[in-house]
Amino acid sequence: MPDGATLSPRTRVLDAAMACFARSGFHGASMGQICAAAGMSPGAVYRYFPSKVSIIAAIVEAERARHASFFERLASADDPVEALTSLGVDVLADVLAGPTAALCAETMAEAIRNPEIRAIYDRAYRDTVHDMADALRRGQRQGRVDPGLDVQTACQLVLAICDGLTLHQALDPSLTAARFRPVLQQLLLRLFRPA
Amino acid sequence: MPDGATLSPRTRVLDAAMACFARSGFHGASMGQICAAAGMSPGAVYRYFPSKVSIIAAIVEAERARHASFFERLASADDPVEALTSLGVDVLADVLAGPTAALCAETMAEAIRNPEIRAIYDRAYRDTVHDMADALRRGQRQGRVDPGLDVQTACQLVLAICDGLTLHQALDPSLTAARFRPVLQQLLLRLFRPA
Repeated sequence: MPDGATLSPRTRVLDAAMACFARSGFHGASMGQICAAAGMSPGAVYRYFPSKVSIIAAIVEAERARHASFFERLASADDPVEALTSLGVDVLADVLAGPTAALCAETMAEAIRNPEIRAIYDRAYRDTVHDMADALRRGQRQGRVDPGLDVQTACQLVLAICDGLTLHQALDPSLTAARFRPVLQQLLLRLFRPA
Repeated sequence: MPDGATLSPRTRVLDAAMACFARSGFHGASMGQICAAAGMSPGAVYRYFPSKVSIIAAIVEAERARHASFFERLASADDPVEALTSLGVDVLADVLAGPTAALCAETMAEAIRNPEIRAIYDRAYRDTVHDMADALRRGQRQGRVDPGLDVQTACQLVLAICDGLTLHQALDPSLTAARFRPVLQQLLLRLFRPA
């Protein structure tokens, strides 16, 4: 982990904001607290982020960019089911071990209320469902995915499972990736594969 | 729907609090706003609920009591898998149509931060996992449930799915119970049944 001094100012603000949001909630954390946690003046922070909402947008965007390589591998995988169940569970385990996991409930609670955050969430959600559904439809053409599966709904359900697990792990530390991995992989394989 | 005057004072406070929490969040809603929404004086409200936390506890308790009949039917069902997949999905659809669905993200975000709410959540979660796991272990003895299934983890995963769906439906109204029901039933049947 590089120390604060070697990170870009933008990354310092994002890291500080994630810590503040996790501790005090999105409403509870002020721009002043975020500036203090980043060790930067308000003027310096506002150069990068004019509002708390713009910080949330950047956190969602960074998360999506971090997983871009997974979606590239999913798009080019010979077997999309194999890629989704094994790579997908790896990506989820990685998210759960990272700093955004504790923010999942907070971001969703805020997206329900705040139209600006809702729009950011909607865009990321639509793109993710689209990429997953494309891969599973390709699997249907190959005979690797149950031809009767409602692919669009299955993808939405899988994303709900990922967010549900993220939230539950924050509340139940016994639900480790090592424990849920085999059950989740079995669940996904049996859901996707032809009966 | 009975009008406010015919409800008990306790129920009037709970209904008003749910509306206030959904609109302004748990932090944002004040006891004053809840009193105003219930049309009751602070003195009258405090007779039933000394704090916002005691209101959240009562909401969680009422939700659990409302589903008590489901868990009784699960405990006595000939086929626990059938009961979990068909009755369980009905219960979930009922929760999603009710006033607590919009509070799910809020309650979980708060449970992550607030030890008092965490304790209430933990108790309800443990009881629910216990009842479901008992039913599935009975199914394993009957040969109706995959003998290799890690029942405890599967139950925690199913609860994560339910909360994930509750959160996602609040953000994606296209994810109706009519759409996810067949996919979720197929997912649960294939997860639980022997391969």
